[in-house]
Amino acid sequence: MKAKVHVTLKRGVLDPQGKAIEHALHTLGFGGVENVRAGKVIELDLTAADEAAARQEVEAMCNRLLANTVIEDYAIELVA
Amino acid sequence: MKAKVHVTLKRGVLDPQGKAIEHALHTLGFGGVENVRAGKVIELDLTAADEAAARQEVEAMCNRLLANTVIEDYAIELVA
Repeated sequence: MKAKVHVTLKRGVLDPQGKAIEHALHTLGFGGVENVRAGKVIELDLTAADEAAARQEVEAMCNRLLANTVIEDYAIELVA
Repeated sequence: MKAKVHVTLKRGVLDPQGKAIEHALHTLGFGGVENVRAGKVIELDLTAADEAAARQEVEAMCNRLLANTVIEDYAIELVA
């Protein structure tokens, strides 16, 4: 089973990487761009057989390693 | 209009960040994890009114700044 984990900064947390991208886009002439936010995606293959077990395992991974839950949110997407 | 750009390394390109995450997960006891790949998501707000114009603009941004098309693929997701 494949899983995709989307890790994004929580609302209200300053995103310097997103701000830098926004500034660079403006400099390149893309003026109509706002609120740029940068996040991460982590794709992984799991040996877990059923979806419930897989989701539980990936949630544990997110809480322990993949996301900093103080400032980041995560979303898990499972693909059979 | 909102856009999400997913930037991932092309197949076959070595992904040291993904390898490091995989190794760390194994160390934490998550043995059943393989083929970990790390990518980026960039979320942005656009002033472009219609979807075709928005997609064209975001594609130009990807080619000029957001993705390194030699080693990375990108996928654009538009949300009205």
